[in-house]
Amino acid sequence: MLNFRYHPEIAKLGAAHLVTPDLEKSLWFFRDILGLHVTARTENKVYLRAGMELEHHSLVLEAGDRARLDHVTWRVRRPEDLEGFHDILKDGGTEVTVEAANKEDGIGESLRFQAPSGHNYRLYYDVDKPTVDEADRSVLLNQPYRSWHHGIGVRRIDHVNLWTTRDPAENHKWMSDMLGFKMREYVTTPEGTIGGWMSVTPLVHDVAIMKAGPNETTPARMHHVAFWLDNAADVLRACDILFEAGIEADQGPGRHGISQATFLYVRDPGSGHRVEIFSNGYLIFDPDWQPVEWGMDNIKTALCMWGPTDYVPHTNDHVMNTTTEA
Amino acid sequence: MLNFRYHPEIAKLGAAHLVTPDLEKSLWFFRDILGLHVTARTENKVYLRAGMELEHHSLVLEAGDRARLDHVTWRVRRPEDLEGFHDILKDGGTEVTVEAANKEDGIGESLRFQAPSGHNYRLYYDVDKPTVDEADRSVLLNQPYRSWHHGIGVRRIDHVNLWTTRDPAENHKWMSDMLGFKMREYVTTPEGTIGGWMSVTPLVHDVAIMKAGPNETTPARMHHVAFWLDNAADVLRACDILFEAGIEADQGPGRHGISQATFLYVRDPGSGHRVEIFSNGYLIFDPDWQPVEWGMDNIKTALCMWGPTDYVPHTNDHVMNTTTEA
Amino acid sequence: MLNFRYHPEIAKLGAAHLVTPDLEKSLWFFRDILGLHVTARTENKVYLRAGMELEHHSLVLEAGDRARLDHVTWRVRRPEDLEGFHDILKDGGTEVTVEAANKEDGIGESLRFQAPSGHNYRLYYDVDKPTVDEADRSVLLNQPYRSWHHGIGVRRIDHVNLWTTRDPAENHKWMSDMLGFKMREYVTTPEGTIGGWMSVTPLVHDVAIMKAGPNETTPARMHHVAFWLDNAADVLRACDILFEAGIEADQGPGRHGISQATFLYVRDPGSGHRVEIFSNGYLIFDPDWQPVEWGMDNIKTALCMWGPTDYVPHTNDHVMNTTTEA
Amino acid sequence: MLNFRYHPEIAKLGAAHLVTPDLEKSLWFFRDILGLHVTARTENKVYLRAGMELEHHSLVLEAGDRARLDHVTWRVRRPEDLEGFHDILKDGGTEVTVEAANKEDGIGESLRFQAPSGHNYRLYYDVDKPTVDEADRSVLLNQPYRSWHHGIGVRRIDHVNLWTTRDPAENHKWMSDMLGFKMREYVTTPEGTIGGWMSVTPLVHDVAIMKAGPNETTPARMHHVAFWLDNAADVLRACDILFEAGIEADQGPGRHGISQATFLYVRDPGSGHRVEIFSNGYLIFDPDWQPVEWGMDNIKTALCMWGPTDYVPHTNDHVMNTTTEA
Repeated sequence: MLNFRYHPEIAKLGAAHLVTPDLEKSLWFFRDILGLHVTARTENKVYLRAGMELEHHSLVLEAGDRARLDHVTWRVRRPEDLEGFHDILKDGGTEVTVEAANKEDGIGESLRFQAPSGHNYRLYYDVDKPTVDEADRSVLLNQPYRSWHHGIGVRRIDHVNLWTTRDPAENHKWMSDMLGFKMREYVTTPEGTIGGWMSVTPLVHDVAIMKAGPNETTPARMHHVAFWLDNAADVLRACDILFEAGIEADQGPGRHGISQATFLYVRDPGSGHRVEIFSNGYLIFDPDWQPVEWGMDNIKTALCMWGPTDYVPHTNDHVMNTTTEA
Repeated sequence: MLNFRYHPEIAKLGAAHLVTPDLEKSLWFFRDILGLHVTARTENKVYLRAGMELEHHSLVLEAGDRARLDHVTWRVRRPEDLEGFHDILKDGGTEVTVEAANKEDGIGESLRFQAPSGHNYRLYYDVDKPTVDEADRSVLLNQPYRSWHHGIGVRRIDHVNLWTTRDPAENHKWMSDMLGFKMREYVTTPEGTIGGWMSVTPLVHDVAIMKAGPNETTPARMHHVAFWLDNAADVLRACDILFEAGIEADQGPGRHGISQATFLYVRDPGSGHRVEIFSNGYLIFDPDWQPVEWGMDNIKTALCMWGPTDYVPHTNDHVMNTTTEA
Repeated sequence: MLNFRYHPEIAKLGAAHLVTPDLEKSLWFFRDILGLHVTARTENKVYLRAGMELEHHSLVLEAGDRARLDHVTWRVRRPEDLEGFHDILKDGGTEVTVEAANKEDGIGESLRFQAPSGHNYRLYYDVDKPTVDEADRSVLLNQPYRSWHHGIGVRRIDHVNLWTTRDPAENHKWMSDMLGFKMREYVTTPEGTIGGWMSVTPLVHDVAIMKAGPNETTPARMHHVAFWLDNAADVLRACDILFEAGIEADQGPGRHGISQATFLYVRDPGSGHRVEIFSNGYLIFDPDWQPVEWGMDNIKTALCMWGPTDYVPHTNDHVMNTTTEA
Repeated sequence: MLNFRYHPEIAKLGAAHLVTPDLEKSLWFFRDILGLHVTARTENKVYLRAGMELEHHSLVLEAGDRARLDHVTWRVRRPEDLEGFHDILKDGGTEVTVEAANKEDGIGESLRFQAPSGHNYRLYYDVDKPTVDEADRSVLLNQPYRSWHHGIGVRRIDHVNLWTTRDPAENHKWMSDMLGFKMREYVTTPEGTIGGWMSVTPLVHDVAIMKAGPNETTPARMHHVAFWLDNAADVLRACDILFEAGIEADQGPGRHGISQATFLYVRDPGSGHRVEIFSNGYLIFDPDWQPVEWGMDNIKTALCMWGPTDYVPHTNDHVMNTTTEA
């Protein structure tokens, strides 16, 4: 039996930590309308998770003076992977901060660092898995909260879509070299690769890293955080619920060619942070998957196979300043 | 027991008779993609019906030099209603032509006339109900063709949406006085009533009559003919099928506030005639239904509760010249 | 213009008035789980309606010592139809009681009588249409309550299915002669016609009248009252919600051949009254519709095209004694 | 950087190789009704794949004198994993046959062996990925065949469900020790563990290994091979299509508690092999997932949360003798 070089691995997306200038309104949106469940709350932070999720949270809402993505967390596959990534990142010239376990957010020891894209990440392994009150608990043993508990009832976090003013292609390479993300689909224009959909799981993407426009006020932004629904029909139900709540969707419903997802974009009215309500899509099990390249002649199909007729990915993205930096 | 004055009644929408400059391409669209079935064909006309329909046809495609709506047919409730409508129309000053039964199109004796909106109508009672070859027949005794036979598989014609340069409100009154249509929902702007959704059935509309823009080349146009699907999910499947066939939808999927329909607009690539793929909606059984009035402050909800973000009803409608007149 | 003999008409099903031995449990089921809204309540009665309904109620729950269907209400098309039906029923030998308008239930003057099947009916025209509190109101002007308000969220009452120990065929004829119901589909066995699906609307049935088994303790029972959902997918969501509420469905999901409905049967745990959660189906607009006859060689298709593998219409129907008589 | 012991890994389920006594009828079922595509054919074998699949086949139909599962193939993650598994299996006392690359079936060098459950497996890495004729090809670059090409249109193979007369628990341990499958959910009765759902992917199961009844004529059987659809609504459409094709489903539609799948069981009329049409379900990304244990008090929920009322997993399984051995 051979010995092989050890590779630490990321198992999954953990959470998006969002700062909002109107915590109560954001909480209303994410809890009452989107249907997340609150697992913990401090004076200025609320921790939430979706109906299928066992971990402490997949979303943090923090009160702050303006909307921004504070950081994204990723769970590693094995406890020792924290040390493994620490070594790889330091070897690669990335500054890493080790953060001690934190009772408040249920996360054990973690690593914090900034990717060249300008986005802040945090890796962890240990995490609390809060139990659920009987009144909210599912009859099913394989999910914490009962199905269709309230609101849209998203089932789990799916991915984050991040924009950078820096070269996306270099960031894709860094995500692959440092963190093990595999490229699944990407878009190339005469200016180079403007976006890549990458994953460590069979999902088409756990993260997309895209080219931000030239007039950004910050180098790194979040385009959206996505939550999963089981059926395309559930996305249409979400459209009704949002409309009845007085929230006008950003774009959709539609289908992306890339990822084949049935999607709806909507903004948290408390912060302007964009959420993607996401279903369908496909899974990649082939170990030799060849990244799918989309170019100028099929970019419309790639981004919006059907749905919005005016789909331009940069549309209105500067109206709401959703950044990772001050 | 009292005697009452007799009122002839329209039972249902029959068919839209469309002229197309490219009969083969239109036939491909309506038969292969939309999923209608051909029941008869002559040198320059094809008769089609949907999977649930027993009557000879709900659509006629006729070869011609340009796209236009030739006429719309309506089936009366009783044989004697033809005579009843003849009297009412003549009394009302409308010229009526009696057309003898016609072997070709399966329609018995019929009345032809033009509404003040400029649209041509034809009333009939007798109609052939062709049988279906065993290879295509449903196991169900209550529908002719087997479910999901091919293509999108629309189930039945639903309604027509007609535009006129003349005053819609006067035409709504005429449709009510002469033909017995009841107003179900309407939109009023400072310029007056710009559209009304009317029916003789519990459907919210068998016909909508809308205000055409000022630059029309003809006084009367068809905005669309609608075909029904059983589920909103089926409309999303239609989006996929159209896209794979190289046909880009006009607008949608979305939901109209008026009628509550989940809709998709798409144009026949052979003619430019617009088709609405239509599901959900609601039924009106209340005999004292009060017409729902929509105004300037909720016109967006009325026309497009969710879906297209750029929904403007007149958009692009002049690109394709779909008229009822030469 | 000819004069014709006047025929009174029934416009629509009004409500089912159910007696339950456990009013609070029944109220929990119909309000919290099925999603009806309470419009009025007295000491021993609760009036409820569905999200799309304008009239005062489509369901009455009344406390009583055992489960039974007290009566079914039907709304007539015109105010004068009450007198018209009074004459027809008396001429036909049916005893009719005129009931004065009743502030409690929002119903104006009404006629009460018993059909030969043993079921009690009540006809009315005038009915209150309560407004909705703003917190519950829809943004849509064409429905009172906001979409997906709570629970399964049924949209409207659809039909009642009634069983009689007396000859169904004679009752079908009586329903046609006296009340104007048209036969749409029926099942015939060597013993005769065992069930008929009849309507005054384009629905395949507003009422079904079926042959009860030989061991009934009362001549007249209710098999179920049906409520409508817009999509087959919504019926599957209902399955989840019922299961999480600890309610095991009676039968389904499945599809009836007759009516083509996607269905689920479930019993109110407070009374044993069976409810059908119902979607899809088809509409009959043809004025010369020929009733569809099903026989022994296709009865399985007629009753259960797919779904329950053990579908026997009489299964377990005696477990819960749901009758119209003491 | 540490060195770690190397572990070969299985990446995914490859295919089920089924023998059928009526190849043409089985081909009709799997190709025309289920919607698979033929990629290769010899005198007595047909190779098929689903619309989303790039590999040569996910199903083999082979003519034979009786229905049996010949073997199941699994793709390893890296080419060198074949050697890795060879060592592990030999060390574990399993006889392994190395099979040379085979032009016919598109599979490179492979390992064949029999699990203690009595089922035959084959591991491979190299595999042909046939291109698709333009007439059948999708506009999407990330799938070979166009969406909704024909029939039910299953999207990919999902899992196999295998039954053994030998102790399931020992086989679960063997699958874990030898092949790296993780237990996700299992059912325990007083007689011990009667079934386990295991995966190497985030799917709840790539394989389930269940206890066969005492009267089996062979120690190892296949209960079903499952194919995926994107939406629960698509499973209902499959019900319609099967019914119109004269095929009565075995059981369903329903929902399993285990895996949360919306399912339908149906048998290939040419062989009696059972197919599961499968949607929804959930994904496991947590690296420390604790296997979910179901017992006697919730076994009905585990196996059939809703749907078939007579769900007994062993029902009728002996009618069709679907075995892996002569």
